[in-house]
This record gives sequence, structure tokens and C-alpha cells, in this order.
Amino acid sequence: MPKLNDDAAAPHLELAEKRLRSLVDISRAFSKEVELSALLAVVARRTSDAIGTERTSVFLRDPECRELWTVVAEGELREIRIPEDAGIAGWVAMRGEPAVVSDVTNDPRWNKEVDRKTGYTTRNILCVPMDDAQGERLGVFQCLNRTQGSFTEDDVKFLQAIASQAAIYIQNARLLEARKQMFDSLVDTLAETIESRDPLTAGHSRGVMRYAVGAAKKMGLQADDLEVIRYAALLHDYGKIGVPDHILRKPTVLTPAEYEVIKKHVLHTQQILARIHFEERLRDVPAVAAHHHERLDGSGYPKGLRGEDISPGGKVIAVADVFDAMTSRRHYRGPMSVNQAVELISDGAGSQFDADVVEALKRYLVEEGTLSAGD
Amino acid sequence: MPKLNDDAAAPHLELAEKRLRSLVDISRAFSKEVELSALLAVVARRTSDAIGTERTSVFLRDPECRELWTVVAEGELREIRIPEDAGIAGWVAMRGEPAVVSDVTNDPRWNKEVDRKTGYTTRNILCVPMDDAQGERLGVFQCLNRTQGSFTEDDVKFLQAIASQAAIYIQNARLLEARKQMFDSLVDTLAETIESRDPLTAGHSRGVMRYAVGAAKKMGLQADDLEVIRYAALLHDYGKIGVPDHILRKPTVLTPAEYEVIKKHVLHTQQILARIHFEERLRDVPAVAAHHHERLDGSGYPKGLRGEDISPGGKVIAVADVFDAMTSRRHYRGPMSVNQAVELISDGAGSQFDADVVEALKRYLVEEGTLSAGD
Repeated sequence: MPKLNDDAAAPHLELAEKRLRSLVDISRAFSKEVELSALLAVVARRTSDAIGTERTSVFLRDPECRELWTVVAEGELREIRIPEDAGIAGWVAMRGEPAVVSDVTNDPRWNKEVDRKTGYTTRNILCVPMDDAQGERLGVFQCLNRTQGSFTEDDVKFLQAIASQAAIYIQNARLLEARKQMFDSLVDTLAETIESRDPLTAGHSRGVMRYAVGAAKKMGLQADDLEVIRYAALLHDYGKIGVPDHILRKPTVLTPAEYEVIKKHVLHTQQILARIHFEERLRDVPAVAAHHHERLDGSGYPKGLRGEDISPGGKVIAVADVFDAMTSRRHYRGPMSVNQAVELISDGAGSQFDADVVEALKRYLVEEGTLSAGD
Repeated sequence: MPKLNDDAAAPHLELAEKRLRSLVDISRAFSKEVELSALLAVVARRTSDAIGTERTSVFLRDPECRELWTVVAEGELREIRIPEDAGIAGWVAMRGEPAVVSDVTNDPRWNKEVDRKTGYTTRNILCVPMDDAQGERLGVFQCLNRTQGSFTEDDVKFLQAIASQAAIYIQNARLLEARKQMFDSLVDTLAETIESRDPLTAGHSRGVMRYAVGAAKKMGLQADDLEVIRYAALLHDYGKIGVPDHILRKPTVLTPAEYEVIKKHVLHTQQILARIHFEERLRDVPAVAAHHHERLDGSGYPKGLRGEDISPGGKVIAVADVFDAMTSRRHYRGPMSVNQAVELISDGAGSQFDADVVEALKRYLVEEGTLSAGD
């Protein structure tokens, strides 16, 4: 591979090369960290290294409070909040232009307050705006105290490149989060509206979700599995939409024929959920939801699955479902006490229910104070 | 602002500066284009400019077909498809290492086929892999024919920086799309399952959506407005979940009391939809859905709004709703012909319905062949 070999240019070339390499590294960091502040902390550290500066801070705008706050401030664990127009960061946030200040003590824009609070001594500052695609100002990137000399035009461009990438990342993260919230709120609303046909079951899906996720955490299940259980629990009774009012709300014991209709809701749930294009990591939701009436010994429905053929998430929801139902009022009986319900579920551990799940649910109930530790 | 001023290094510094500037520009491009292939076309053009190369291509992997295909191939409008391991692009895609080839005729990996098909003469190639955060290979970036000399190590690093950014963008775009599909499929499924309580209304929400979006397009409404109308149409009868079976499926004319219960579904729809955290651009969905039984002259329900107080989207859905209902079978009557329905709606134009919407719906029906142009 041909090499550039102008010796006189070598030190500067090294710098240019180093910076290009830093940009590549930083670009890659953007795709590796999932959590925004952790990512920006990595970016800030690499930016300080690449530019040769003591500290890099990232301020985000809080439009409601008209403030700037530090999502990252190297060397400072506390969040710093300043009025949106205060200091050099505020000037940049308002004007949308970079600021290069070689001696802050000579700059009238300088806000001494922050140094006074943090005990840090700022000598010089480079600060650039961070704007999203629609030109909205998300915040500013700021480097403090260049270790050698003053900030250069190259530094400005370099920091602008970083701020551009960060802006894309932040905007994407917000869009992804907004879309997730939209989906989650629709799932929540759906679960509640399905229950709204029968006031006595109001809150059941949410209850099952709480107990199932609580137990699953105690079992050490990981984030993606917990999410699958969360959605499957909220949606497990979706198929009840196909059960007629007169059976759903019947105040007396169901006939065998009516019970058969009720039992079909599990198949309906699975058929309905199979039509939802869950993200890859959530693709087990329909199967997990479809297992909530299966029993370890094969006596459940709709398939009479046994042991390992039942999904782990399905086993968790089965216990949570029965526990929430037993401790709630129904048309044909009053609510059972927590102790009674725990006893009945413990009796079924190993036959109807997975014993690990039953233990995990008990631990969760003790932890949240619903059950006393001795029970 | 201090300037670097080593004269001997000037030409190379200019190059380094130019490249840093290109990187900033390209970073910004990533946040401006919404459509993937349009974005990558801009990135390819700027990459060619920055590196000084005739053409830049972006190949994406198609794992199912085990092929690489050009989402962008500068100077070539047709999509080029090659086996995933063919040629230098294939070598890079398989190995995950960059390839720098100063004379393709001397390289055994060279695949002459593509030049033969396109009539282009490739002399030299720089090709780098494009991997996502999990290390999955998304495709490759390829520059053809450097205008002066051979590709350098700097070129490799520069192209890697671009490919890293493109990978983040592509992965984000796919994640956003997956999340949108998840939400959309839940909305579709929800609309269908609510209708499933009454087989005669099956497909109604979808029909209203089709007529409403069709008419709205004819009226020149823009993408975001069309999306609001789409969701509002699909969800406009969500509130019917609160209407009991015996009223919903009653085969004879409703009593005034039963009709009052039916009318409440609009308020329920609005209350339910208000709990969904729609993305900013979709925030009007609940209000638009809530207006589908309002009438221009104030004789509608639930609020008896008039004229401009009814949202434009609500006016469109009102017409689409009545048209779909009239042309479908109901418990108490058979379906009306399209001509009859259009006539009745036209009679209501200016009093019950917005005249522009009625005209737009007619144009849509003519265009799709449901209505003949003379009617």
C-alpha cells in the first residue's frame, strides 16, 4: 500500500492521522453503547484524548426549565445545571456558533459560578453547538483546558464532527424511545380495554405482569426474557375478546360447554399475537402467552404440554395468573388471602406449577412486603 | 483563532483539513436524509469527492439469497447483484478486511463480469467492510478508479470512518422500521379483533382507512397528515369495545336508549386513544378519531361541532366511514350499491359532509375503478 512520505509534514500528518483514527473509533463507540449517558461518557473521554484537553462536557438543553444540564461532565459526578443562556456554553447554545476562548478571565461571557461550585479552575474553553437534523439545538459540546497551547481551527472542526454524530445518535435514541413508548402504551391500553368488558377483571393483566416480572427477576432472567414475559403477561388474555359477554360475566358456575368456550381464549390469544410483527428479540411473546394455562404434569390446556415442552416464560406467567386471579374477587367468589393463595400454589409446586417459579414468586412477595418472611 | 502554519506541511494539511471537513459534512448528511438509498447516494457522492475517485458503490448483504446488491452504484441506475463471495467486494464481505487493489487486471479475486455488464472499465479498487455494532456484516463500501495515483492508507481509514457511520445509520433505520412495523401490526390486529365481536363489521376499519387515505391523497394532504388519518381511521371504532354484545349485534332497529349507548363509543374511542403516547407528529390521532361522527352543520355527535371546529382529518374519516358502512351489509339491511352510496353522500355535501372531501372521494373511487367517471 503506498505511503505518504513527506518528512517535513510528519508531525502534523501524525496528528491528522490520529484524529481520523479517533473519529473512526468514536464512530464505532456510537454503535456499541446502548445507554445514552454511558455512550457520551466514552465519547467525551476519547474526545479529550484526541484533542489533548483536560475535560470534555456534554450539555443537553432542557427546554421546559430553560436550562442546560451536563449529561456528561468529566471529573464531576454531580449534574451541573445552568440557565440556558449562562456562560460561554449558554452563549453557544443561544447563538449556535462555536466559541474559542484562550483565557476565560478576559472573557465577559465567562460564568465563574460553575468553577466556584466544582472547585475546578478553567483556563480556556472550546465550545460548539449540537443541532439535530431539523436544526433544533440539542445542547453543546465543550472542551476545557487544552493541555498545550490554545484551541485551533482543527480542534473546532473535529469537535463539530463529534457533535454532529452525537446529535444523530441522540435524535435516533429519542425516536426509538418514543416509538417504544408508543407501542408500550398501546399494549397497556389494549390490556385495560379488553378487561373493561368485565369490571371484575380490571387490572388483572397488569397484576399478572407485576407478579410474573417480579418472580422472573428473582430467578435471574435477563433483560430480553423479562421483556418477553412483560408483553406476554399483559397480552395473555387478549383472546378473551372472542368470548361472549354472557359467558364472560356469568355470575354462577360455568357449564362444561361454556367452560370449553372460555378455554378457547388461549388459542385466540396465540392466533392474534402471531399476527403482530414483534421485534426479533421479542419473537417468543405469542408462544409464551399461549402457555399460561399449561401445567407441568400435562393436565393443562390447550395442548396438554409437559415439563420442558412448556416455555420458561409460560411457566412463570401460569403461576402469576393463578395467584392474581385467586387474590382478586370474581363473580362467583370473594378474594382469597395472600397466605391462602400462596399455600394453594405451593401445594401445586412440582405437579401443576414449576417449583422454582413458586419459590421465586414467594421471594418476590416477601420482598415487596405482601407476604411475611416466615410463611 | 490560532492557525497551524507549517508551510512545508501545507498541501497535506489541506488534505487532512479537507477530509475532516468532508467527515463533518457527511455526518450532517446522515441526519438530513430520511430515505436510506437517497442518503447513501449523497454519502457516496461526497465520498468520491473527498477521496478523489470516479465512483463509490455501497453493497448490502442479502443473507437469504446469499448475494450482495448495490443500494447505491454511482453512474449505474440498475441494481447490480453478485454472489456474496464474488469478486473483490465478495472477498471483503467474506473476510471482513479492507482490500486495496492498484491494478485489478493483476488480481485473481477480480470479477470481470460486472464491468462486462455495465460497460465500465475498472482500474483500481478500494473496498472496506461495513459491520454493525454486534459485528454482523451489513455489506461493503467500495471506491472505483482513484483519479490520481493509487489508494493510500489514509483513504482506507477515511472510508472505514464513513462505513462505520453508515452502519450505525442503517442499523438504526432498520430498528426504527422494525419498531414501526411492530406498532402498525398491533394497530391492524387491534382493529380486526375489535370487529371480530361482530362478524358483519369485519374489515370496516380497514375499508374506512382505505377510503379516507385515498380521498386525503386526492386532496393533496402530506405524509404526516396521511399517517394521522391512517391510524385514526383504523382505530376510530376502538370505543365499541365498551358496547355490549346485545346492542352491537342487534338484528333489528335500535331503541333510542340503545342508540345512546352506541353513540358513546366515540367518547370511549377518544378516552382510550388519549392514553396512547403517540409520537409528536401523530399526536392529533385521538382528536381526529373523535370527530368521525361530527357533521358540518353541527347536527353530529358527540359535541355537535360545526365547520372549522371539526379537524380536517375528522371530516375525511366521517365521509369514508359512512361510505364504507353504506356499501357493506348490516344486521338490519343489505349493502347499498356504490352509485347509490355516492349519490347519498353527494346529497349531504355542504350540510352533513365537507364538499371537498366528497369530491376527493369520488375522484379516488373513479381512479380505483369502483365508480365510472360519468357518475
